This record gives sequence, C-alpha cells and structure tokens, in this order.
Amino acid sequence: MATLEDVLATIDANAQSALDRLFALLRIPSISAQPEHFPDCDRAADWLVSELADLGFEAKKEPTEGRPMVMGTAKAKTRDAPHVLFYGHYDVQPADPLELWTTPPFEPRLETTPKGERIVARGAADDKGQLMTFLEACRAFKANGGLPCHVSVLFEGEEETGSPSLPAFLTKNAKALKADLLLVCDTSMWNADTPAITTMLRGLVFEEVVLKAASRDLHSGLYGGPAINPIRVLAKILAALHDDKGAVTLPGFYDGVEELPEEIAAQWHDLEFDPKKFLGDVGLSIPAGESGRSVLEQLWSRPTCEFNGIVGGYTGEGAKTVLPAEARAKVSFRLVGRQNPERIQQSFRAFVKSMLPADVRVEFLGHDGSPAIGLPARGEALRRARRALEAEWGTPAAVIGSGGSIPIVGAFRRELSMEALMVGFGLADDAIHSPNEKYERRSFHKGARSWARILAGLSQ
Amino acid sequence: MATLEDVLATIDANAQSALDRLFALLRIPSISAQPEHFPDCDRAADWLVSELADLGFEAKKEPTEGRPMVMGTAKAKTRDAPHVLFYGHYDVQPADPLELWTTPPFEPRLETTPKGERIVARGAADDKGQLMTFLEACRAFKANGGLPCHVSVLFEGEEETGSPSLPAFLTKNAKALKADLLLVCDTSMWNADTPAITTMLRGLVFEEVVLKAASRDLHSGLYGGPAINPIRVLAKILAALHDDKGAVTLPGFYDGVEELPEEIAAQWHDLEFDPKKFLGDVGLSIPAGESGRSVLEQLWSRPTCEFNGIVGGYTGEGAKTVLPAEARAKVSFRLVGRQNPERIQQSFRAFVKSMLPADVRVEFLGHDGSPAIGLPARGEALRRARRALEAEWGTPAAVIGSGGSIPIVGAFRRELSMEALMVGFGLADDAIHSPNEKYERRSFHKGARSWARILAGLSQ
Repeated sequence: MATLEDVLATIDANAQSALDRLFALLRIPSISAQPEHFPDCDRAADWLVSELADLGFEAKKEPTEGRPMVMGTAKAKTRDAPHVLFYGHYDVQPADPLELWTTPPFEPRLETTPKGERIVARGAADDKGQLMTFLEACRAFKANGGLPCHVSVLFEGEEETGSPSLPAFLTKNAKALKADLLLVCDTSMWNADTPAITTMLRGLVFEEVVLKAASRDLHSGLYGGPAINPIRVLAKILAALHDDKGAVTLPGFYDGVEELPEEIAAQWHDLEFDPKKFLGDVGLSIPAGESGRSVLEQLWSRPTCEFNGIVGGYTGEGAKTVLPAEARAKVSFRLVGRQNPERIQQSFRAFVKSMLPADVRVEFLGHDGSPAIGLPARGEALRRARRALEAEWGTPAAVIGSGGSIPIVGAFRRELSMEALMVGFGLADDAIHSPNEKYERRSFHKGARSWARILAGLSQ
Repeated sequence: MATLEDVLATIDANAQSALDRLFALLRIPSISAQPEHFPDCDRAADWLVSELADLGFEAKKEPTEGRPMVMGTAKAKTRDAPHVLFYGHYDVQPADPLELWTTPPFEPRLETTPKGERIVARGAADDKGQLMTFLEACRAFKANGGLPCHVSVLFEGEEETGSPSLPAFLTKNAKALKADLLLVCDTSMWNADTPAITTMLRGLVFEEVVLKAASRDLHSGLYGGPAINPIRVLAKILAALHDDKGAVTLPGFYDGVEELPEEIAAQWHDLEFDPKKFLGDVGLSIPAGESGRSVLEQLWSRPTCEFNGIVGGYTGEGAKTVLPAEARAKVSFRLVGRQNPERIQQSFRAFVKSMLPADVRVEFLGHDGSPAIGLPARGEALRRARRALEAEWGTPAAVIGSGGSIPIVGAFRRELSMEALMVGFGLADDAIHSPNEKYERRSFHKGARSWARILAGLSQ
C-alpha cells in the first residue's frame, strides 16, 4: 500500500506538469466584475469540471443567477473516512491598471528572484494558485491508490463581487455539500517560513440608531436650553458603552466569551508580531482596546463595540446655530466565541432605550448579524492540521485569528452548520488585487504537499 | 414751557400727516438683497436725510462698501441732557412671492379689521414703521420747544443682508456715534396690550472640534480593538459636558452668571407664557435645560452648551465597517450676564485636551464669540423706560430676554461699548419677511407716544 511519502514524492515528480496546469487556468481571464469576461468565467468553470473529472471526481457546473458554481465529489478509498468540503474561487479581480503590469496579467510566467521563483499573473495567489494546491494533492493521492478522505469541492465564480449567489446555493444544495469539515485555502501564512491556520473569525452585529426629538430643526438661541438635543442624548449613550478600561458595558455582553486556551495564548505571545509597528503603520502608538489584553487578543479573541459613523445637525463649513431634530449613529459589535448576535442586539436596544429621555424616540435599523467562527482550539482536526503543517514546514504552524469576518465562511456556518479550517499559503507581499500579483512557487509546491499531509492526517 | 402732555397732543394731532410720511417711505422699494433696487436704497436714505433735516438734525448720507448709512444728530434743549443713539434700518426684505400679496407690497394701504386699522406694505413693521415712531416723537418735541435728550440716529441699509458694513462703520465713526445709551426699535411687544423691553440677549461662543486619530480610515474588523476610535473619544467628551441635572461642567463656566433679580423673576413668572404650548408646538413636552429653572429662565437668563452638528465615519445608507480616522463636532455656548467668551473658549479647549488619549490630536476651528447683552436689570434707564411704557399702555411693560443674539446689538456693544434698550411695537402676527406684512396703526401711533414718554423720562 502506498504511503504518504509516496504521495509527496508524486507531488515532487509532478512539479512541472502541475505548473503547466495552473498556467492553463491562469490564462483564462475569469473576471467576475466585468460582463465582457462572463464567458471566460464559464470557461474557467468548464476547465475545472474537466480537471476534476480527470481526477476521478463526479463533477458538474451548476448554474446560479450569476456565475456558475463548480461542484465535485470523490469517495475515499475507505468507506468510513471523514468527509471534507473544500472551498475555493475561480474568479479573479479586474487587472487594471494594466500599464502597471510588467507583463500581461493573463500570460503567466515564472520570475526568478533571490528568494526563489514566483508565479506572476492575475489570480496566481487569489485564488487559482491556492485552490490548485488542493487539486494537486488530490491528483497525487489518485496516483497512489486513492483519497484518504471523502472529498467534496465547491468552486465559486463570484467571490470577488461579494458572493451574491452563494447563500441561496448553499441552502439549495445543503444535502450534497454538507461534510464534517470545511477546508478553505484563501488565507496567508504568518510569514514566509511559518505556516498558519486561521481558526477564529470574529462575528458581527451591526446596528443603526436613529434618535428623534423635536418635530423640526430648531434655532439653538430660541430653543436652546428647554429643547432636548438628540446629539447630547446620543453622546451620553455612546459614551456609556465602554468603561474606563475599554470593556463594553452592555449587560450580558461577555456571555460566551472564553479565555484563550493557555497553549494558544503562549503561541500568540511567541509569534513574531510587533504591536508598535502594527499601530505605527497607521499613525497610532497605544493599544486602545481592553486594558490587560495584548494587541493580538484585542484583535482576534476579544469582542469590541465600535462606532462606524455618526451624524446629526449641521455638518457643513462654518457656524450654524441649529438644534437638530435628529441624530444617528452606526454601531457595530465584533463577536467572539459563543456570543449570541441576537442577544447582543437585544441587550443593545434595551440599553439605548433605558437611557432615552421621555421626549426622544428611537428607531433601530438592524442588519444581519453573524456569530463568531471558531474551530475549537483543542479540537482534533486542528491538532492534526497543525501536526501536518509542522511536518511540512519544519516549524510549528501559527494558530491565528482574524479580526474581520470572511463572509463565505459565515455563510457555510449559517447554512450548513459547518466549521472551517482555513489554511493558505499566500504571503503579505503577494499583491493580491494589485498589479503584478504573484504566488511563490514554493507556496504552490509546498502547499500541495501540505494538503496531502493534512488529508492524510485527518483520515488517521 | 411745553409739557409732555403737549408733545403727546401734537402726536395725536399729527396722526394723519405721520401716516402720510410713513407711506412715502414705504413706497420706496429699498430691497437691499436685490441689485436692481440699490438705487431705491439710495432714495430711501436720501428721503431720511431730508426728513431729519426737516426735524432740525444735522444729517448726511454716508457711503459704505454696500448701501449707505444715514447719520443725524440733534442737540437737546438743555446742554446737560443725556445722549441717546437711535438705530433703525431702512432696507426691507424682498417681497416675493408677489402673487400672495393682496395688494402690491410697495403701495401701502390701511386695512380695517375688527381689531382696528393696520398698515399693509413691505417694511410696514420691519423696520420702517418702527423707526418712524421715533422720528414722529422727535417731530412732536421740535414743535414743542425742542428735544429732551441729545439725539443721534443711525439708519442702516443692509440689516436684511447681515449688516456686512456695520462693524467697520461703527469703528470708523466711533466718536460721532458714541452715546450714553443705544435705543433700538426692531423688536416686538409681549402681546397686543403689553409693551415689552428686551434687556437681555444671550451671547455666543461657537467652536468646532476636529479629532484625528489614525492616519487613514481603517477596517473595523482588522483594527477594531487596538486602534482608537475618534467617535468614541468625541462621545466621551460631549457626554461629559453636562452633568445629570443639565448643568454645564466646564470649570469656571458659571463665572459671571448672576441670579435673576427677584423683581424680574417675579415678573417673568407672571407673564402669560405657557411652557407646555411652547414645547408642544415643536413636538416636545419636558424642559431639558438645567433642572430647577423655568423654561423662560432656561431660554433667557441661563447659559447653555449645545451640539449643533456632529459627523464622523460612514453616514450613508446601510452598513460599512469603517473605523474612522476623524470625527468632528460643532459645539456652541449661549452666554448670559458677564460670562467671558474668551475664557469659556479657553476652558472648553482645555477640557477637550484633558480628555484626549495620547493618540488623538485635536484641532479647533473657532468662530467670533460675543458676550451676552444686558441692560442692568436694576438700572435707571430701564426703570424710566418701564415707567414711560406703563404710563402709555396702562399695563406694566414686560422686561424680557431673548435666547438668540441680535448681531447689530453685539456690534454696538463690541465697537462702541454701548448698552442697548430694545423697545419695539411689533406683534407676533405682523408677518415680517412674509407676504402682506402689516403694522398695527395703534402700534405706529402709540409707539410714537411711547418714545416721547421714554425720551422725556430719560431726561428727567
């Protein structure tokens, strides 16, 4: 029976043909934002269906209201193997401004640099190069007796335009897509030598508060004093949402927020991360989040309350002595752990109402909330993926969070109740969305090897 | 020697010719906002110069960069009489929309109503009818042996366009214009039967605060937590400016704020004023100013801090998870008594700075401040004017304040250090600035009699 070493050897032996296959995909200008490239999006989908069929997948192109999805599924060599769903996207960003590209964006080439070879083309890193690392791993397993896991794949063609068709598609195809674990290859390494697993994405509650007082704008001389000013009420409410230590004061806000496991905390502590540089790059110097928490904690594992916008009264140039009838603010909460978006929305609304004088009315314009995404930090899948990555890269994988949300991961969680393991091999200087996008050849090659090790690890 | 009764009898006897004179002035369409009427402004100024000459004044038209001023001066019959400066304006608002006028705006007419006759024309109340009440009083004194006070007059032709030339003109002609007391006839009665003296106008400090944090707008997911949010800082500052009882917390803010004299407080208490209706008319119900103060106190004799505008971050429709680089607010203070605008500005700026985290910078965009205007409530001039008005109207004069500022009064205070006695005979339904502007014939006639009594009273 073939061993993992055999599979890895196959990946090494196929390095040149793997590059040829990636180049073929990179030559298709599948720009989802530009209607003249819609046929190219279809061509890319067709190319992937053919590629999957070649790998022994049952694969098809599925229409949506926008660009088509590609779905594929292949059985493992053993029946009781775990089932993973791999997500990637075949669409790319527009290539403008073209004049800043050294060579045409859809004519992929290898460039030799002191650090090694790099693949230059639109989509090299985001996300064609990354998704092909997974298919190359599958190809090597096929040549060595079969897959260690049941594998489904879903390739989307609208990620760069906000995934408008994805949620409905997931709902409609829930049965076909549901698996034990979602694998996503659309993130970065911690640095060129340190692989990373993103296991935590903060969730979001976004609220707009509209306070209404007098029936019209008033003259601040003729009414100032007896007439209530909604900006004043709004300022009092917003000011009361954080205590002196930067913690959020909403009742029940921290329900479901867990302390970081010691192991992860220790690992974050050891990460090469310079908080001074992180803040200094945007003109700041002092961490403003909860006191006693490191910057990475404040970003990845602690919830926040932010004010994204505020407006009321006269905002043009110069002086106008108006006493406004209305003031509004956009308030958002980043959630972690098992914080419940609905409960936080309710708590926020009750808090605002409790601070309203009798003459002030409130309207809330709510937006869809999403819970935080987290692969259980002590979970088996994570442990196995870490071991696999350390074996490949010779250095422990960083288990990191991301302060933002990745909408598609939220969609999988919401529609299919699936947790995501996000492993990617991009680097900070890949220039995704910019001219001369590149993907390190090392990322491409060792990425495929990493997936082989992860799939093998998950099946043990 | 002629008595005040003789003077009043002359006014009564001249009622018809006084009306003819006012009609002559009302026929001149001296609209200062419309260049095609600039020659009419000059005609109105010339008409007033001629009228003043006829009354024995040394009078002249003085050019400015805009419409001309009319200055006049006449000696009292006794050398040591007090010296008053009377201010009025000969320019009027545009008459549009013309189709809403029952008769042409510059063809003055008398209209008979159940309440008496009224003079209908643009400028009838604002301010030609009012300023002519004073000249008719002077005319009656002239026919009876001379003026009881030295009288200077200043008629402006740009009041309706913001008095752009006034401050420089006052500075330039300070020596000629300086008098013991400024008389202004551009305000209203308390109601149709109750005369009013406006003795208090609140002053103003207007500040714009700009808080700057990060060097650019940030993503609230990727930076929220460690990056300081200037809206949050601004909300904390604004929220700290009022205590729980609605008082302003700035150190030294109440320096120079005096308790209302008991006599005035009692009089305000007795004024026919319905706070419920005042607030109810604009959709409110509960006085929001300092607790323990009546609505009229909150409006006229207590200082305020208001937020006239606030803006920061994303203010368009929907959700955007931005963490803004900047937030700004317009903050104004209405001043009373001897509050010092410069000191309050300094105190405010120091207060803001004291609440800034190290990473937040502040810019202040200041605007011209003005102190409150007040005729000393126990002063002799006020006492005499009240006695004169009560004698004429048979009911005590209301001594009132105004929550707003009247810019020209501030200019006289600033440039000439003169206090103002504001007495006017307008009514709330005069429709100034609107179609079918009117002035009660009773206001015109008894207004002239009132000034005769006031001038006589001031000279005693």
